[in-house]
Amino acid sequence: MKINNNFSRIKESYLFAEVAQRTSAFAKEHPDAKIIKMGIGDVTLPLCPAVIDAMHKAVSEMGVKETFKGYGEYRGYDFLCDSIAGYYKSFGVDIEREEVFVSEGAKSDLGNILDLFDNDNTVLVTDPVYPVYVDTNLMAGRNVIYAAATEENDFLPLPDNSVDADIIYLCSPNNPTGAAYTRDQLKLWIDYARARGAVILLDAAYEAFITDPAVPHTAYEVEGAKECVIEICSLSKTAGFTGTRCGYTIVPKQLKLGQDLNKLWLRRQSTKFNGVSYIIQCGANAVFTPEGQRQIKESIAYYQENSRILMEALDACGIKYFGGKNSPYIWLKCPDGMGSWEFFDMLLERANVVGTPGEGFGENGKGYLRLTSFSTHESTREAMERIKALLKK
Amino acid sequence: MKINNNFSRIKESYLFAEVAQRTSAFAKEHPDAKIIKMGIGDVTLPLCPAVIDAMHKAVSEMGVKETFKGYGEYRGYDFLCDSIAGYYKSFGVDIEREEVFVSEGAKSDLGNILDLFDNDNTVLVTDPVYPVYVDTNLMAGRNVIYAAATEENDFLPLPDNSVDADIIYLCSPNNPTGAAYTRDQLKLWIDYARARGAVILLDAAYEAFITDPAVPHTAYEVEGAKECVIEICSLSKTAGFTGTRCGYTIVPKQLKLGQDLNKLWLRRQSTKFNGVSYIIQCGANAVFTPEGQRQIKESIAYYQENSRILMEALDACGIKYFGGKNSPYIWLKCPDGMGSWEFFDMLLERANVVGTPGEGFGENGKGYLRLTSFSTHESTREAMERIKALLKK
Repeated sequence: MKINNNFSRIKESYLFAEVAQRTSAFAKEHPDAKIIKMGIGDVTLPLCPAVIDAMHKAVSEMGVKETFKGYGEYRGYDFLCDSIAGYYKSFGVDIEREEVFVSEGAKSDLGNILDLFDNDNTVLVTDPVYPVYVDTNLMAGRNVIYAAATEENDFLPLPDNSVDADIIYLCSPNNPTGAAYTRDQLKLWIDYARARGAVILLDAAYEAFITDPAVPHTAYEVEGAKECVIEICSLSKTAGFTGTRCGYTIVPKQLKLGQDLNKLWLRRQSTKFNGVSYIIQCGANAVFTPEGQRQIKESIAYYQENSRILMEALDACGIKYFGGKNSPYIWLKCPDGMGSWEFFDMLLERANVVGTPGEGFGENGKGYLRLTSFSTHESTREAMERIKALLKK
Repeated sequence: MKINNNFSRIKESYLFAEVAQRTSAFAKEHPDAKIIKMGIGDVTLPLCPAVIDAMHKAVSEMGVKETFKGYGEYRGYDFLCDSIAGYYKSFGVDIEREEVFVSEGAKSDLGNILDLFDNDNTVLVTDPVYPVYVDTNLMAGRNVIYAAATEENDFLPLPDNSVDADIIYLCSPNNPTGAAYTRDQLKLWIDYARARGAVILLDAAYEAFITDPAVPHTAYEVEGAKECVIEICSLSKTAGFTGTRCGYTIVPKQLKLGQDLNKLWLRRQSTKFNGVSYIIQCGANAVFTPEGQRQIKESIAYYQENSRILMEALDACGIKYFGGKNSPYIWLKCPDGMGSWEFFDMLLERANVVGTPGEGFGENGKGYLRLTSFSTHESTREAMERIKALLKK
């Protein structure tokens, strides 16, 4: 028996454990401090009423013989695939029902999709990076290379024709930087991928937070994308599904890199997956109804107001930041040349506010800190008042 | 870009498509025929009231800020892991909370678990076989060898010390044959695996159908199992969760094949999985309450009565069969030396009953047919009356 030794290539991530440890140590020493967590990457608002109603109805159906549902389609129920295709249509993009694959979340499919590709491929990720892209590939034994996302390129690296990559992960709007590619910038990546016969795995988990009209909600708004992009989407941040679990992956029929990837993915899914729970698919489907869309947009607007409060305070402090406009993440440059952990400690100790040190996301995250807009208005305002009092020049 | 060419090693399975095609062609030609499907591998009874109530409660919690649940534990909620450990305790087996991993079904984990093992390992499966074991391994590029399950060994092959295998799939009670290993037989496999440092992946999806006291409900009833067995379980057949999606995988802490597999699996899951929906975990948890156990046992007794009807009819016809006693599957030997498809056609055309040709499950399935007990009492009785009228000597 040979264990997969590629696991030894994966670094243990101590980021969130270290954040939790420093925070609880401080809380223990200062039991009266009212600590506000602004590093949270999870949603806090409940599921919207349309989703709740749809799931109650589905649960009831499962208790009655006549409406009970056993095994479903591997791809997902037609009703949901059609609703998702309809959502794409609202952006002027034609996606067929058979190009939609319902998943139990973007994270799973970001890793699972790799089953389609040989291990002897070069994977390109941007740095700072959501660690899952790197770890899933290291685990399989692939070579991972990095494109630097820095202040100089607005944290939006563009393709370098001297670099050869086969599998390209893009996250736009980006976790952790909040930066988002415009159509024109994405076109450069698509041209690069098509010229090389490479595939782009586009993580679109934060798409619902886009406000800039120049930023596409889907890569398929851009010419040529169907020939090289697999788009991986999630309802986690769009509709508060982090604990409910549902997403979807688009594998266009035009995507033929030697083989028909749509067919290959269906084969993979039918072998290693049995579809998402009927109840959850009914809840997901409600997100795409007019009522559901209206309700989730209220929640997103709530988080966006938090982003506005954050950005206003940072502006008042003269702190440089990225993101916020098209994303629930604000990526700020630590003032006075401080390091990520140094500024983290300062905020914790002197403002009792917890962020996420940027260097946990990669080399280019050093000297940055991530704040999120998933808290309440009250906590966000209070946190920002404290930071202003501490830093305002 | 290199596609994973191992997909070309996977045979397209035409079994169920061919069954459906022949059945619908016959129905078209004989619109008055009342066809009874006895090949169905899906449950037909609804979820039990305890599960429905628990899921309604969980759905309501998700709609209220104070009780809303975001990301859960990768491993599953403690309340469910503890309930599953309690279920093992009822068989006299001690399993720790941290050894339980909640999954969205056995099928996913039967494939996913392979991420832990190098591709350069030899995989042993029994033949006939649930095709997923073979396909997931071929897809990854592994060598698959077969142990023949035949009438001579009661469809329960035992280890052959002259054969070297690293990863051993056992399904007991078996799909498709319904045969189930006793403790003593399983001990031989466990001794074989321990002597070689091999791992046994035990698919226990049909455990709830066991009636023979000599057949263990879990491999961990057998000495040494914790050192070599990963047990992969499902609520699909136990509690009708085929469309609800929940299972669990046990990775004992004693399982150290060079590395600590429990830790490695947690690392894998935290990278490629985000846990099962809170709502579904609440439903699963209700299965393990006294009320839930009483209710699911009623459904299982219903299916078991179908098995009894099936076996009684086959006895009356003098047809030899395996399974049925500890499983919802009955594996019958086609009479008069008929082939699987020949007998399938005869039953379809002359009794309007649909079974599943055994040869779809492998070389040793030739000349056999699988019937299942997932239909109604009425349909099962009617089907057996017709078969008796056709075949009774």
